[in-house]
Amino acid sequence: MEKKNAFYAQSGGVTAVINATACGLIETARAHSDKIGTVYAGRNGIIGALREELIDTSLESDENIAALRHTPSGAFGSCRYKLKNFTENRREYERLIEVFKAHNIGYFFYNGGGDSQDTAYKVSQLSEKMGYPITCIGVPKTVDNDLPFTDNCPGFGSVAKYVAVSIREAGLDIASMCESSTKVFVLEVMGRHAGWIAAAGGLASEAEGQPPHIILFPEIHFDRKQFIAKVDATVKKYGYCVIVASEGAQYEDGRFLADAGAKDAFGHTQLGGVAPMLANMVKQELGYKYHWAVADYLQRAARHIASKTDVEQAYAAGKAAVEFALAGKNAVMPIIVRESNKPYSWTIGEAPLSQVANQEKKMPIHFITDEGFGITEECREYLSPLIQGEDYPPYSNGLPQYVKLKNTLAEKKLKEDFKI
Amino acid sequence: MEKKNAFYAQSGGVTAVINATACGLIETARAHSDKIGTVYAGRNGIIGALREELIDTSLESDENIAALRHTPSGAFGSCRYKLKNFTENRREYERLIEVFKAHNIGYFFYNGGGDSQDTAYKVSQLSEKMGYPITCIGVPKTVDNDLPFTDNCPGFGSVAKYVAVSIREAGLDIASMCESSTKVFVLEVMGRHAGWIAAAGGLASEAEGQPPHIILFPEIHFDRKQFIAKVDATVKKYGYCVIVASEGAQYEDGRFLADAGAKDAFGHTQLGGVAPMLANMVKQELGYKYHWAVADYLQRAARHIASKTDVEQAYAAGKAAVEFALAGKNAVMPIIVRESNKPYSWTIGEAPLSQVANQEKKMPIHFITDEGFGITEECREYLSPLIQGEDYPPYSNGLPQYVKLKNTLAEKKLKEDFKI
Repeated sequence: MEKKNAFYAQSGGVTAVINATACGLIETARAHSDKIGTVYAGRNGIIGALREELIDTSLESDENIAALRHTPSGAFGSCRYKLKNFTENRREYERLIEVFKAHNIGYFFYNGGGDSQDTAYKVSQLSEKMGYPITCIGVPKTVDNDLPFTDNCPGFGSVAKYVAVSIREAGLDIASMCESSTKVFVLEVMGRHAGWIAAAGGLASEAEGQPPHIILFPEIHFDRKQFIAKVDATVKKYGYCVIVASEGAQYEDGRFLADAGAKDAFGHTQLGGVAPMLANMVKQELGYKYHWAVADYLQRAARHIASKTDVEQAYAAGKAAVEFALAGKNAVMPIIVRESNKPYSWTIGEAPLSQVANQEKKMPIHFITDEGFGITEECREYLSPLIQGEDYPPYSNGLPQYVKLKNTLAEKKLKEDFKI
Repeated sequence: MEKKNAFYAQSGGVTAVINATACGLIETARAHSDKIGTVYAGRNGIIGALREELIDTSLESDENIAALRHTPSGAFGSCRYKLKNFTENRREYERLIEVFKAHNIGYFFYNGGGDSQDTAYKVSQLSEKMGYPITCIGVPKTVDNDLPFTDNCPGFGSVAKYVAVSIREAGLDIASMCESSTKVFVLEVMGRHAGWIAAAGGLASEAEGQPPHIILFPEIHFDRKQFIAKVDATVKKYGYCVIVASEGAQYEDGRFLADAGAKDAFGHTQLGGVAPMLANMVKQELGYKYHWAVADYLQRAARHIASKTDVEQAYAAGKAAVEFALAGKNAVMPIIVRESNKPYSWTIGEAPLSQVANQEKKMPIHFITDEGFGITEECREYLSPLIQGEDYPPYSNGLPQYVKLKNTLAEKKLKEDFKI
């Protein structure tokens, strides 16, 4: 059998550990160079495949590939691009086949979240629908932690750790200032559709009264009156109140709190910011001095405080993807299987792409307290192992040393360009 | 000579390392227990002295005092409270003397920024103006880095490191997303009056084209047209643009950018947020997809990524304060003296409180590039040593273990309460 090359791409929002997955995948492919040829990485995800912009990872040193393990974000570029289905845009699939044929690609590894696994699944159908034999493995990644089947998603544990650490630290700050200054602090975190990241803030509290005192989940409809009453009661009891708000926090009618309808000086609608919106609400209703923070990309890029567990699982997912392909598996995704909780142990399992695509795993409602502002013990037991361990990157001159790859493109073999 | 007790208080906005100063001070006082009795800490700063709420630090174990070195924020509570002058509010000074007498306090250590050193200076005049003998030492602390005489301020180096690390990490994120998604990212940082913290973001860039591409300083008047042109040129050249904006960024007429006059759905003026304001401006003028973050308290509480240099200097400042007092010095503040740059070395010097109080050290204009959007090589050489080294706190269960002191109050000896 002729040795085939591989295509790997990063897709969707990047994370602190998606490059650790790339590292696991490429190192494992290199260890099986008798069976897998060159690993080409898509420049900017699947767009790179369509444009025939293939990064030749064989030109990167072993040392630089190893350094991917501690480098955040997508080293080859990522994208937000979803393939249409076969009937809508058959040309895209034909193009993929042309590019794969031209570069002798027999393995397709797609590293992303729900939307990306949909793309991976469509590509896996190329064999059947268009007669091009390809082994297709989805590789999980998402800070949103919303992929089905897998116990948790690589990328989530590190955001969870960042948010928990940040709340612990900021909470101490407010506690020390509240007598004569700031009494209410709001941290806005990611999670448009599910409260997993907000829930992780709850890990910061290990005893009654410790921050955060309020968590706002997308799963629980926001009730202004209840919220204000809870803030006030908290300030009166503890002297201050720390709030973690999911960007997806919403009213009963589905409107996001962030769509508050504020206009700037030019009459334009001002976008976003659940945190400033809530802070102003508190100021208006209760008059307390407030501060607010929006972590945004800082939370998902924060490799400096990554979870060791997360890094290990991200690496393992990349490694397993290659091992699955070599074992002749197709249209599957490696998943994290929780074997036990105390002590925490996990293994790699698999799930069929046909069932992974376009499904969102919501947070179980019993992970949220009856009152709706906190996490239950069960939630804590689920989340806690995912933030265990530190895995510091190397530093030089006081700054983390992240690798920048050469990212040399393979020579194009097709005459035609492809517009996307 | 009768052995005197000491009073120590934390004042103003707290930092990641002000407790390291407390640690240095209390450990050094304990090492000289033949000369200094109990160290009382003010509960919530000077307010604690006025209210006779004195925390008896002798009841804390050596282990817990040592753990202050790695614990952020103010372990005894801080405050925003400035003593009036003698003629305006003589009663406050009389009260201080009553409390100090009642608890045999002969040493006063006040740990804070410019306003706090003003308070320290006023207290140092108690001997002369009100006949109460007290040794008064100011101890420097401020993330704003704006105290005079000292080369830099304990607390600043750790914020600087946090901002530089965050920009490096978020910059990689945008770089990997910019082809099909976010092209402009704005991080808002502290520094109402001086651009020191914003400047520190510039350390993230170690080669042409690396983020941040634009820094907005309070020292440089904001020009909308020039800013938009620079953003556009940067996106066209590098594919994306990363901006660090000081919360103090302002127009030529002194209006803060944050006072954008936005109204929320209720017609209330929406406070703050230079970052969302700039992001919207970019969206309106150029149409680029953006993200923004506001670090707020996260930056000054981030002990998990503190600068080792900063921790050492903070500890040394506390230690020196006690040594100064024992050497019979009065009305002085220990300062950091830069002895050499390469290799970086520093010693502890001293400055008279009479000249420290109410002075702000601005950023030298030659630290900012001619164009006004970046830092010069000279600035980099000044800043770089201050973020050197990591000093990780201990972790348990994936979270940093910060100490919570018992904070037991000494029994009150005065009959009268004092309202502030």
